[in-house]
Amino acid sequence: MTMQRKKVSVIGSGFTGATTAFLLAQKELADVVIVDIPEMENPAKGKALDMLEASPVQGFDANIIGTSNYEDTKDSDIVIITAGIARKPGMSRDDLVQTNQKVMESVTEQIVKYAPNAIILVLTNPVDAMTYTVFKKSGFPKERVIGQSGVLDTARFRTFVAQELNLSVKDVQGFVLGGHGDEMVPLIRYSSAGGVPLADLIPADRMEEIIERTRKGGAEIVNLLGNGSAYYAPSAALVEMAEAILKDQKRVLPSIAYLEGEYGLHDLYLGVPTVLGADGIEKIIELDLTEDEQAALNKSADAVRAVMNILS
Amino acid sequence: MTMQRKKVSVIGSGFTGATTAFLLAQKELADVVIVDIPEMENPAKGKALDMLEASPVQGFDANIIGTSNYEDTKDSDIVIITAGIARKPGMSRDDLVQTNQKVMESVTEQIVKYAPNAIILVLTNPVDAMTYTVFKKSGFPKERVIGQSGVLDTARFRTFVAQELNLSVKDVQGFVLGGHGDEMVPLIRYSSAGGVPLADLIPADRMEEIIERTRKGGAEIVNLLGNGSAYYAPSAALVEMAEAILKDQKRVLPSIAYLEGEYGLHDLYLGVPTVLGADGIEKIIELDLTEDEQAALNKSADAVRAVMNILS
Amino acid sequence: MTMQRKKVSVIGSGFTGATTAFLLAQKELADVVIVDIPEMENPAKGKALDMLEASPVQGFDANIIGTSNYEDTKDSDIVIITAGIARKPGMSRDDLVQTNQKVMESVTEQIVKYAPNAIILVLTNPVDAMTYTVFKKSGFPKERVIGQSGVLDTARFRTFVAQELNLSVKDVQGFVLGGHGDEMVPLIRYSSAGGVPLADLIPADRMEEIIERTRKGGAEIVNLLGNGSAYYAPSAALVEMAEAILKDQKRVLPSIAYLEGEYGLHDLYLGVPTVLGADGIEKIIELDLTEDEQAALNKSADAVRAVMNILS
Amino acid sequence: MTMQRKKVSVIGSGFTGATTAFLLAQKELADVVIVDIPEMENPAKGKALDMLEASPVQGFDANIIGTSNYEDTKDSDIVIITAGIARKPGMSRDDLVQTNQKVMESVTEQIVKYAPNAIILVLTNPVDAMTYTVFKKSGFPKERVIGQSGVLDTARFRTFVAQELNLSVKDVQGFVLGGHGDEMVPLIRYSSAGGVPLADLIPADRMEEIIERTRKGGAEIVNLLGNGSAYYAPSAALVEMAEAILKDQKRVLPSIAYLEGEYGLHDLYLGVPTVLGADGIEKIIELDLTEDEQAALNKSADAVRAVMNILS
Repeated sequence: MTMQRKKVSVIGSGFTGATTAFLLAQKELADVVIVDIPEMENPAKGKALDMLEASPVQGFDANIIGTSNYEDTKDSDIVIITAGIARKPGMSRDDLVQTNQKVMESVTEQIVKYAPNAIILVLTNPVDAMTYTVFKKSGFPKERVIGQSGVLDTARFRTFVAQELNLSVKDVQGFVLGGHGDEMVPLIRYSSAGGVPLADLIPADRMEEIIERTRKGGAEIVNLLGNGSAYYAPSAALVEMAEAILKDQKRVLPSIAYLEGEYGLHDLYLGVPTVLGADGIEKIIELDLTEDEQAALNKSADAVRAVMNILS
Repeated sequence: MTMQRKKVSVIGSGFTGATTAFLLAQKELADVVIVDIPEMENPAKGKALDMLEASPVQGFDANIIGTSNYEDTKDSDIVIITAGIARKPGMSRDDLVQTNQKVMESVTEQIVKYAPNAIILVLTNPVDAMTYTVFKKSGFPKERVIGQSGVLDTARFRTFVAQELNLSVKDVQGFVLGGHGDEMVPLIRYSSAGGVPLADLIPADRMEEIIERTRKGGAEIVNLLGNGSAYYAPSAALVEMAEAILKDQKRVLPSIAYLEGEYGLHDLYLGVPTVLGADGIEKIIELDLTEDEQAALNKSADAVRAVMNILS
Repeated sequence: MTMQRKKVSVIGSGFTGATTAFLLAQKELADVVIVDIPEMENPAKGKALDMLEASPVQGFDANIIGTSNYEDTKDSDIVIITAGIARKPGMSRDDLVQTNQKVMESVTEQIVKYAPNAIILVLTNPVDAMTYTVFKKSGFPKERVIGQSGVLDTARFRTFVAQELNLSVKDVQGFVLGGHGDEMVPLIRYSSAGGVPLADLIPADRMEEIIERTRKGGAEIVNLLGNGSAYYAPSAALVEMAEAILKDQKRVLPSIAYLEGEYGLHDLYLGVPTVLGADGIEKIIELDLTEDEQAALNKSADAVRAVMNILS
Repeated sequence: MTMQRKKVSVIGSGFTGATTAFLLAQKELADVVIVDIPEMENPAKGKALDMLEASPVQGFDANIIGTSNYEDTKDSDIVIITAGIARKPGMSRDDLVQTNQKVMESVTEQIVKYAPNAIILVLTNPVDAMTYTVFKKSGFPKERVIGQSGVLDTARFRTFVAQELNLSVKDVQGFVLGGHGDEMVPLIRYSSAGGVPLADLIPADRMEEIIERTRKGGAEIVNLLGNGSAYYAPSAALVEMAEAILKDQKRVLPSIAYLEGEYGLHDLYLGVPTVLGADGIEKIIELDLTEDEQAALNKSADAVRAVMNILS
């Protein structure tokens, strides 16, 4: 029955998971299931109910539930993984990676069981390695396991450029490759404001500052909040990717995709431009990189592999 | 210059304040200033920046800033007060009232100084008494000081009825008078689904349960969350009221309004049906109440007066 | 594949058909196929292309094509019939009915062939009889053949009441039963502004004028335009019904439904309150009518039967 | 009073004028006044009423009226001119220019009288010369008299490219300079899909075909319709420009602007990239053109001057 409502499950009921659920429901993209561990089931239920109570006022129609029972995710069209821990002071990177790896594996097992045809979107950090983990564990075809980083990095970049030039964010485009945050490889020659290349609008040294601010964009929010990390922009990024898939939009968005030779790289997940539609990643767009760009991308790949080596 | 962007200041950067800011910006209703005390300035800035970074992806154009400096609220069209403390275990009601009264007075002083033409929306609990406090302190005309409770109470009621009948929330209407939550006076004869009076659709005893659940709607969320209270639906309610004012929509919405004889009541703020437009509360709609309804409203007014008596 | 785009075919590329197509695409509800006879194929293609060229600016993603080939409607989820002639000066009612009956039959044949699982929405006048014709010809179950009149009649009524009271149209509700236009049976006791029954807000004689204006609402537009009839509001009405079905919203909307005993009526299509969802008309809501109301509804049914008797 | 509703007057109640009015109201950007000559006043009223009757269903709040009395346009924030005749078979270009010149002058006189602070958007063809006429006649500062062509030309180009590449229109950007249609100067190096320059995605000869189709985009629709010209995409373009101004968005959009030395051109209106905000054209963006591009722009300017020479 083609007209049945679509279903998206969001794993993790923290701020990012909850905000993602809300933005999905608000756009009437799908009914939403927020899943968390049993200890967090009640808060998940509370957030879901609060969102539902906003729906008559905001004028949207969507069911939203909180649960700790993966049976409720049955036949989800998309599963979005936001679960996992954040790195805390004193925690080694290895600890972070291995803890979140276990979370990914446990979540993936449930997805495979209850939503074997779902497309999976991964946000949990370190996201390149975590997406790889989910891919391996799930046995899903590569086009159905996708990580998020580039939409967020680009969004931050666009925000800073729009502020710099006092222009609408709607008219600023950015373009990144590679890993998330520090490992980001910005392609300034493909970035523009109102179609005009940024190099014509912003001096090189100022541009470098903006890129650097983008790289550290996550940390900037963490430092300001004092306790916690960004969730509005990450959620918006996840929802844009989910919308492209749910509506089969053939959007050109940067995704963390599994590479098998593209850009000269093999057997890892890394940020590249992709076409997102009903089948997930329907295409990886390959660009002719300059030598410098390819070198930066290789370095980014090395950094991702270094994290992958920690995976048990 | 009529085409300048409108400006809304939100006092309090907690979950409700932040979500209110986000929903305002998302609808491009105004530029938004989130204000908090100096100790919370950085978190306010962090949330504002995170929202702004969501804007290129969500496709909205609005400035959002966090600040502890009331100068930034200068010439706001609307100021929304969400600041104040929540009642904690062991805290007496008097303590709650008097603490929040001081917050209201301090905030109002700043509003009067920097945004003397603003319309003020109050959410802080106990909301009827707090709205009264802001009214008295500000010296603003009564139509420019408004409290929120009925839009939220109605939203919860509509949600529960829609679930009960398995109908779209878009087609369920509710109607309440009086104080917030426990003191709410539902007018079931004015509540309907698809235009059909609810009394024809839901048995009386089941309706009573739904009303009771609505009364305790805030507590239900508090209990589920374990730590904190509802913010999605309260924020949506504030934004609907703000939108009606900013767009001069002449919406019929329940507001906490200053009564001067309406419904036989004098010199208190209480929930009544109003018309909201560019001037704030442009009209209080008076209904012919049954004896029972008037008695319930009087009781609700008494409860509000009991809280007002605690005001110093 | 659940994520494939939905498809709606609109039969008739006149103003109503074209506007319906545009509003569907604008909301990204489905890809749209506009069908007309071979002589009108090029205009249909021209309108479709013009709409498509608006999509980058309006920010929607949907395919829109014009065609005279019913193969292009293959597997449509919904087919909306706007085709047919309007009554011209000097044309007898019988001529109108029989001409449009032939159009309905010819269109229905194609729908049965190419979109056997579609839900059909009928707008062509005289709409009660034309919906009946499509139902009989298609052999579809009754819940999948639906006529539009009440959403439009109610929209006009709400507009006039909102103007009368200087309130937002968002807060005015109306309720009608029976045939379209002149045959409309308004249920004023179920009509309200901001939840308040209209009888408390508008004097009876003024209300009678508003009802009369609503009855003649189509003619008012015809007279003003001089050449042609209303299409914005009729299209909006069709799109609201289609959206309820495509998103399985369980909206309570008035539909022209096939009656088998409801309201004491048998074997005819007449306007009644319904629940619209993925299955089409999922429920007919039966109300306890007063004697006067039932008499008016019977009279309305008689008028519909009189037209049905003209059907060959 | 900053919260009063904004007001946009649309001169001309034909398809483009009416569709522009509808799209403005639908977005709740302003109250809308549709103005036409006395003979067309009733059709203008009919269309306005039909749109208004769509508002409860589409969920927007805006007044829309039709009139032949310019007093109704008093204090409009924006006036959009769509009035004028289209070139008919056998009509000389001089006749077209001089007839529409008279229309522009007559309309402008009224605007100056009733809305002396308005920003004027011109669509009437030949649009570069007609915008010049309105500028001269009005005596308004140049930033408040603006012509539309580039948003439409770009929208067509984006549509064709999106179809060619099977990508979302949301991710295709185009860039044009110069006159409308045939006189358009596309800057392919500033056009991209998902940030990737089109030259990397589409072979040069195929690109040339797409550009040629864009140049003839208006004629393509005219030929298909058989009777009339495009109105959906032109209206969408006007509304995007109006929205940028009404919301002070600082959008980077191509506008027909008065040049005083920019691009080496003087005293004519021609399409250039601009920043649109509350003051109208807030900035003209100057690009370094290649020799070929500058030559094409000069040729375009010559063509515009040739039309200007016909002005009486």
